Amino acid sequence: MSIYQKRLKQLQLYLNEQKLDFAIVTQPKNIFYYSGFNSEPYERFMAVVIDLQKSEEYLFVPALDYEAASEHSYVKNIIPISDDENPYEKLKSVIQVNNQIVGLEIKEITLYQQEQLKNVFPHFNYQDIGRFIANQRMLKTPAERTKVLHAVTIIEKVLADGLKKIEKGMTELDLVSEFDYLMRKFGADGPSFSTTVLSGAKSSLPHGHPDQNKLQKGDFLLIDMGVVADGYCSDITRTFVLGEPTTKQKNIYEIVRQATLSGVSTARAGIPIGSIDKAARRVIQEAGYGQYFNNRVGHGLGIDVHEEPSIHEKNDRLVEKGLLFTVEPGIYIPGFGGVRIEEDVYINEEGTAEILTSFPTALQVIDRF
Amino acid sequence: MSIYQKRLKQLQLYLNEQKLDFAIVTQPKNIFYYSGFNSEPYERFMAVVIDLQKSEEYLFVPALDYEAASEHSYVKNIIPISDDENPYEKLKSVIQVNNQIVGLEIKEITLYQQEQLKNVFPHFNYQDIGRFIANQRMLKTPAERTKVLHAVTIIEKVLADGLKKIEKGMTELDLVSEFDYLMRKFGADGPSFSTTVLSGAKSSLPHGHPDQNKLQKGDFLLIDMGVVADGYCSDITRTFVLGEPTTKQKNIYEIVRQATLSGVSTARAGIPIGSIDKAARRVIQEAGYGQYFNNRVGHGLGIDVHEEPSIHEKNDRLVEKGLLFTVEPGIYIPGFGGVRIEEDVYINEEGTAEILTSFPTALQVIDRF
Repeated sequence: MSIYQKRLKQLQLYLNEQKLDFAIVTQPKNIFYYSGFNSEPYERFMAVVIDLQKSEEYLFVPALDYEAASEHSYVKNIIPISDDENPYEKLKSVIQVNNQIVGLEIKEITLYQQEQLKNVFPHFNYQDIGRFIANQRMLKTPAERTKVLHAVTIIEKVLADGLKKIEKGMTELDLVSEFDYLMRKFGADGPSFSTTVLSGAKSSLPHGHPDQNKLQKGDFLLIDMGVVADGYCSDITRTFVLGEPTTKQKNIYEIVRQATLSGVSTARAGIPIGSIDKAARRVIQEAGYGQYFNNRVGHGLGIDVHEEPSIHEKNDRLVEKGLLFTVEPGIYIPGFGGVRIEEDVYINEEGTAEILTSFPTALQVIDRF
Repeated sequence: MSIYQKRLKQLQLYLNEQKLDFAIVTQPKNIFYYSGFNSEPYERFMAVVIDLQKSEEYLFVPALDYEAASEHSYVKNIIPISDDENPYEKLKSVIQVNNQIVGLEIKEITLYQQEQLKNVFPHFNYQDIGRFIANQRMLKTPAERTKVLHAVTIIEKVLADGLKKIEKGMTELDLVSEFDYLMRKFGADGPSFSTTVLSGAKSSLPHGHPDQNKLQKGDFLLIDMGVVADGYCSDITRTFVLGEPTTKQKNIYEIVRQATLSGVSTARAGIPIGSIDKAARRVIQEAGYGQYFNNRVGHGLGIDVHEEPSIHEKNDRLVEKGLLFTVEPGIYIPGFGGVRIEEDVYINEEGTAEILTSFPTALQVIDRF
């Protein structure tokens, strides 16, 4: 049985238990998860549709993706929709049901789509299936772990090679270019998110954008990046110092390093997810920097670079086998700079944490400054 | 008055006419349009909120973006939301209204968000504001045209320089890397969408993905790419032949070139938008290739790479000053290959079409094959 068939079977079991008439899966990465067809339809309609009365699956795709879908999709019943067709009417013509409890990803389906569905299915009523799908995707098989590990291996080679290119006079964006270039060179499909290189005071912006800022002696250099390879993502952050670090820089760096270590080494099956966040946060708080760490400590990682589970203090769900997530505490001091160290962690068959990232975390000084 | 203030004023006028109590703008590019703060919050809550009873505007941002938002946002009332807060409850605490007709972008707000809003606003009722915003954004000022033109200028330099790098043995992804590298080098923030390089039979996939496919003598080479620079996008497609073209290749190429030309030269204020599509399509149909062109001829372009208006046959809305869109007919023959030629067009103050793209469209042969 193909992996796609297995996943669809699990989903169908759930949908049947819920007594749904049909289900529409529209999130492109969820469609990839169930069909093997990895595509971004932009504003066009694309969906895996499961008709539970007829026990049939369909893949609706924009007409211009029909050939690609035919090549890659496990779901063989492919229905192309051209730009002048109404996708919801087309859907109605295929799904001829009377009772209409529709399974939908409530975090995906918009009010507009709901209105369209109500137009064609007058007895329309919905129930969320997004949570089930997110939970299904959250638990990674060893094969999926291997795919993430492959993406990690690529990004670590990119990081190692890219660091050698750093020189005086370079801007943040120059370095982004180098990294993005190396990603493709080492076989990635592309970055898993916009490559982040922040230097100096800008490194205190957890979501800051690289710009023409020149790398300066004495700066923190924060690099946060990842690749997509074969449909799976990596995500790593390391922070460096350009030239000799000050005592304060060394101090802050070491606190964050201990925080990451503490989060990672706490992780194992059976404990609440929140305790990973707490373990990392405690190190920062006890060192007196608690006010400079205002976000959750991590997030799930897989087909999407941000997925379930959310690793935050109040998540009391238990850690279980198959989880794959980041641990990335940081200290961000406005006007001064920031440090973040991020590892990717897999909870393996034994329920213990395997750190997929292996790039050293000891403070590395870029000495060409 | 700043451009953001002007835009917000226009929106407020509309919201008042519609007798709304408050409005929530969540699409990140719409937030950029009204506030100047250009950020991707991923799954976190970010919104420009307009309270019409108090005549106040707020920018809600994830706590970790607070510093960046403070620096870039025109809306000065910034409310940070940390990961352990419920953004909808925070919203409720700021907007203390009784009557609750809320303006929402119905193509953005999900069923989940609706449920959250209903939890905090028991008398919740919504009305779409997305169409108004899309229409507002659709009409570009000359300053916005200049920004798109800047993005076009960059991508054409990238294309010209990148072509020189093509050599035997290169893969599609190698060429993607070159282009993406040059984008940053020439000052772009990054690609405006995933850079597309398709060769040989793969060029018949309008949404195909570049891979390790080697460029081969005799292939069509289809390149579709753009950049974001200063928040605005470009989008251009050119198709080349590697080595001497066959008569059939030359033929198909010339038909597409005439189709693009016909679409572009039809465009002017006052005619129905659909007639641009029809003019381009007719050329392809009359040449007997109608079955190989199954998508709309173009789309609006600006802050997003796909925005209003949609340039398709059945759009009977009239072309007006300020529209900025692509014209990109193609012929895609499965198993053989495809040709697309895409221009970016602005309807200027005189109501005539200015072609922003200036890269030559005559068939160019890459002769190192």
